[in-house]
Amino acid sequence: MIEFAQFGAGRIGQIHAGNLGRVAGARLRYVVDVDPRAAQRLATQHGAKAADRATALKDPAVGAVIIASSTDTHADLVIASAEAGKAIFCEKPIDLSLARVDACLAAVKKAGVPMLVGFNRRFDPSFKALHDRLHAGEIGQIEQVIVTSRDPGLPPAEYLKVSGGQFRDMTIHDFDMARWLLGEEPVELYATGSNLVEPWVGELGDVDSVMVVMRTASGKLAHINNSRRAVYGYDQRVEVLGSKGMLRAGNRTPTTVERSGGDAVASDKPLHFFLERYAEAYVAEMAHFIQAIGAGGKPSVGAKDGRQALVLADAAVQSMKTGAAVKLG
Amino acid sequence: MIEFAQFGAGRIGQIHAGNLGRVAGARLRYVVDVDPRAAQRLATQHGAKAADRATALKDPAVGAVIIASSTDTHADLVIASAEAGKAIFCEKPIDLSLARVDACLAAVKKAGVPMLVGFNRRFDPSFKALHDRLHAGEIGQIEQVIVTSRDPGLPPAEYLKVSGGQFRDMTIHDFDMARWLLGEEPVELYATGSNLVEPWVGELGDVDSVMVVMRTASGKLAHINNSRRAVYGYDQRVEVLGSKGMLRAGNRTPTTVERSGGDAVASDKPLHFFLERYAEAYVAEMAHFIQAIGAGGKPSVGAKDGRQALVLADAAVQSMKTGAAVKLG
Amino acid sequence: MIEFAQFGAGRIGQIHAGNLGRVAGARLRYVVDVDPRAAQRLATQHGAKAADRATALKDPAVGAVIIASSTDTHADLVIASAEAGKAIFCEKPIDLSLARVDACLAAVKKAGVPMLVGFNRRFDPSFKALHDRLHAGEIGQIEQVIVTSRDPGLPPAEYLKVSGGQFRDMTIHDFDMARWLLGEEPVELYATGSNLVEPWVGELGDVDSVMVVMRTASGKLAHINNSRRAVYGYDQRVEVLGSKGMLRAGNRTPTTVERSGGDAVASDKPLHFFLERYAEAYVAEMAHFIQAIGAGGKPSVGAKDGRQALVLADAAVQSMKTGAAVKLG
Amino acid sequence: MIEFAQFGAGRIGQIHAGNLGRVAGARLRYVVDVDPRAAQRLATQHGAKAADRATALKDPAVGAVIIASSTDTHADLVIASAEAGKAIFCEKPIDLSLARVDACLAAVKKAGVPMLVGFNRRFDPSFKALHDRLHAGEIGQIEQVIVTSRDPGLPPAEYLKVSGGQFRDMTIHDFDMARWLLGEEPVELYATGSNLVEPWVGELGDVDSVMVVMRTASGKLAHINNSRRAVYGYDQRVEVLGSKGMLRAGNRTPTTVERSGGDAVASDKPLHFFLERYAEAYVAEMAHFIQAIGAGGKPSVGAKDGRQALVLADAAVQSMKTGAAVKLG
Repeated sequence: MIEFAQFGAGRIGQIHAGNLGRVAGARLRYVVDVDPRAAQRLATQHGAKAADRATALKDPAVGAVIIASSTDTHADLVIASAEAGKAIFCEKPIDLSLARVDACLAAVKKAGVPMLVGFNRRFDPSFKALHDRLHAGEIGQIEQVIVTSRDPGLPPAEYLKVSGGQFRDMTIHDFDMARWLLGEEPVELYATGSNLVEPWVGELGDVDSVMVVMRTASGKLAHINNSRRAVYGYDQRVEVLGSKGMLRAGNRTPTTVERSGGDAVASDKPLHFFLERYAEAYVAEMAHFIQAIGAGGKPSVGAKDGRQALVLADAAVQSMKTGAAVKLG
Repeated sequence: MIEFAQFGAGRIGQIHAGNLGRVAGARLRYVVDVDPRAAQRLATQHGAKAADRATALKDPAVGAVIIASSTDTHADLVIASAEAGKAIFCEKPIDLSLARVDACLAAVKKAGVPMLVGFNRRFDPSFKALHDRLHAGEIGQIEQVIVTSRDPGLPPAEYLKVSGGQFRDMTIHDFDMARWLLGEEPVELYATGSNLVEPWVGELGDVDSVMVVMRTASGKLAHINNSRRAVYGYDQRVEVLGSKGMLRAGNRTPTTVERSGGDAVASDKPLHFFLERYAEAYVAEMAHFIQAIGAGGKPSVGAKDGRQALVLADAAVQSMKTGAAVKLG
Repeated sequence: MIEFAQFGAGRIGQIHAGNLGRVAGARLRYVVDVDPRAAQRLATQHGAKAADRATALKDPAVGAVIIASSTDTHADLVIASAEAGKAIFCEKPIDLSLARVDACLAAVKKAGVPMLVGFNRRFDPSFKALHDRLHAGEIGQIEQVIVTSRDPGLPPAEYLKVSGGQFRDMTIHDFDMARWLLGEEPVELYATGSNLVEPWVGELGDVDSVMVVMRTASGKLAHINNSRRAVYGYDQRVEVLGSKGMLRAGNRTPTTVERSGGDAVASDKPLHFFLERYAEAYVAEMAHFIQAIGAGGKPSVGAKDGRQALVLADAAVQSMKTGAAVKLG
Repeated sequence: MIEFAQFGAGRIGQIHAGNLGRVAGARLRYVVDVDPRAAQRLATQHGAKAADRATALKDPAVGAVIIASSTDTHADLVIASAEAGKAIFCEKPIDLSLARVDACLAAVKKAGVPMLVGFNRRFDPSFKALHDRLHAGEIGQIEQVIVTSRDPGLPPAEYLKVSGGQFRDMTIHDFDMARWLLGEEPVELYATGSNLVEPWVGELGDVDSVMVVMRTASGKLAHINNSRRAVYGYDQRVEVLGSKGMLRAGNRTPTTVERSGGDAVASDKPLHFFLERYAEAYVAEMAHFIQAIGAGGKPSVGAKDGRQALVLADAAVQSMKTGAAVKLG
């Protein structure tokens, strides 16, 4: 039985705490949050205790932590947890500064603790099946990867202000997806973006619509497109062209109902947003983490993956600014 | 908090016990099974006690029962539970004898207890959405209902021998689906069947492939087709033609992955069987039961529905025997 | 070069005359119609002459006839054409009376001329591919056939009055489709029908919504459903379940455009009606006829097929009247 | 009646000559080809005469020309035809040199003759429906355009050598598609490419796999991906994201047959290549040209469109060479 301390009792924290309870071999012991009432509520719901950070990290019964607090607290918590010898499940991104990310990686390496970064999409049943079949050679050599990833609507301005910008906040997931599917690091990246959705996004210095092209050393090509607004719901698709065919994974829908009417044949829109679309992925991600650390192994998506996605996001910011492609690696 | 006693610790019993634990406001108190070790195992897993039938039914703390034992025990348990004043969740069929079903209905009526019969498909998100949109008038007047329902493969001979035959064991679900979608009772029924899958099915006096046509008083038409073997998985589809269009609900698949190859474009087979396809339906069914009895209301699919589906199944048996249509009602 | 005389210059006659012009090795020589101006118009358009029946049938240069006039003239024309030694392409149905159909078959047999009956759907690329793959054994033994066939809307009352009723006018195509797919004659048939679309159909003594179940000697099962009104367009689908899988062929659409909106994902309705859906089939049918008779062979869908479909339609009329299944063969 | 002279009797010339015969109001008078026997064959087939260029262009009965000869002859023929006052249907590309294209445009402008450039995909029923619905505002403001365009396999090396490279030979169609859908000129373009399919392509100095991103002045984004080899057939799809939804048009298939088997659910691959996929588009393109010039109007896709697509292709070549984005306009 692995005992957990969780930092963060907000929306994503509630999901992780709930999923923890579904996996055999794990138990939530402490919940830590800047809002003690929120910590208490979530702790009570899962038979755990509200605590402060020091208590949680000092307790030798705690084998692992879940870092689901706000992004600006991640790096400190990763370093402190590593120094306390805890296995680490950290929501993405590790941090928005590459220097602090590197400090985290160093601490984790020094402590020798396992760390998983929450790129939950790798655990989506469709994307995982596609990835596994792809890397089993089902369509031969990988040639082109296309990632389409659009949110149903803009987040609040308060969120955007501290998000790090669309590339670091949103595209970072797709950079990870592209790397994972390519099986090879990009060496050149071009990115551009526009403010098309609402003028206030541009006034904050951000964009809401972006396109990226990347190239690996062996010549594999990847494209990402993002929008902060797809009125038809959360649009999450990947496509890979290989020498022997193509694999695609599309959206999932609430039901299979289809209406044939005098106007058209109409079926369900995609599931609304990440909580619905990736519900199964969050469970699988937690199960993987618990199984991996229980077996003394390494989670399949680690600190290095968190770092590399940020490297690509930073390059995208630079490319958009200069209008030129960026050489990597 | 409603406390439950559950009869039956087999496959479907384990599902119901698990789902009970997911619904707020309910708790499993007793598990009863002919195999005491199975009862003990399931009870332990859910923080309940293994008990015998008398103990479970006498305990005034028990407000509701789940009858998930073998079909031949259903009627006795329904009557005893009704007499003990418990709310009843009974797996389908209530019984294979219409006389015993009527005895159950009488006991339930006399006791004034709520009863749900486990036609789980009514709680499938796709079928439920189709039903609700249909009865909200989305495609005008209902004209034709088509139910396609095929199992992935034959059950063991031991099961078939005591199943009551394909119409009472398998088609009974589809009779309920057709009634529910039609919103009106059939008044004429024709059924025919064949032994096409394995000769031993015919040697047991059963069929494995059937087709039914039904007609209501207002002229609505319904068709059901069943097979005990669809090598591509559990095939569960419904289609309704109305004066203003058509609604269809199709199969669900494990993933959305699609491969385009030199031969064809290939996508996932349907989910394998009822445990996979109706996993969400079983949860929704239990949640509905607990909510309905908690609110002092009546479950949406009751004892009468269990009876009417059996009336249709009996008529189908007779029609197949005589080669003639049967008048009902 | 085979020279043709065509009887009938109406809608379907215009299609056949046009398709004839697209097939190498054939030429339209005469057009015969009760309306001489219609005959003249169509003849001019295709470089042919308007003529009367006697002239057309006496001319030894005419090798083949197309009978596309009104149904009540088919039998006389078939017999006269057979006696004149012409190859015969006859629109379905040969006649609404089995006795007259038999007289046609006798005349054709006596004359030894090839005859094709216009069951055009056998030449639809999708249905033909399904049929050929099915009979090549792709899904093992055939077990169940399901034919869905719905018109976009009611024909005029004038048409319905002389149509012979829904089974002989509309379902007759589906009886042919079922026989062709089953590869075996039905031995039992049950049919029922309702007047659901417009009351005036019932006042004419006809129905507009029917369902049929058939059984062959080896136990194969078939279902047909028809409606005279599907507001979403011409609905033409077939499905075959076999011991090793299922084959389905669905509707075709004008375009592949799909709109994802705030409400739903919407795609095209099926093609509107038979002229659109079966445009390719009509061309292929004519090409097959010309190739078959040019090579001295027999068309793949002959007089016997026309007769058997009528036998099933007659049995359906009787079954609907008596409420009982009809034994055949 | 408009009389045509056609230059080129090869594969695409045969298609244009055939389609010309299907459109009322047009007649083929002359066929000109470097191979007199090929010219004679095609001329005979369509009731025309083989002739030399001078004869064809001098004949005042000739109102229009079709230029379907090899690319290196286009510019001369356009200029000579314009000077002779003929309406011009010119296969794409006008030329591979922007200077010569500009000379053509000048000649056409001076002569005041109508000219259509053969961007046949604009006449595909699905792409045309998508375009028209898009520009009718069905999904609000256009934000992102994605064009996927892949050939089934490599052309012969002889063809590639004189093709002008992948951007000018293949992507040029997609540049036109993107411009047409965007409704606005790109002002920035980034392109990259790889040799992934066969090493001999690289040895010829060409690539076979490319990705492009473009940006318009108002910030609209467009992506194109191309491959010379998609083993599953000709892959031609477009997708447009707008402020109120998304429109997509996908591939077309030979049939609608779908097989559900023990392994997967399999449907048809896309139609094999452009002759199959764009058969209807070629007919519609010719009908449009004849109707436009007959009415004294301008074809919807003109010389300027041919020029602009080449400007983008040239920019792509430059971007791939320098690894930097190119500013346009």
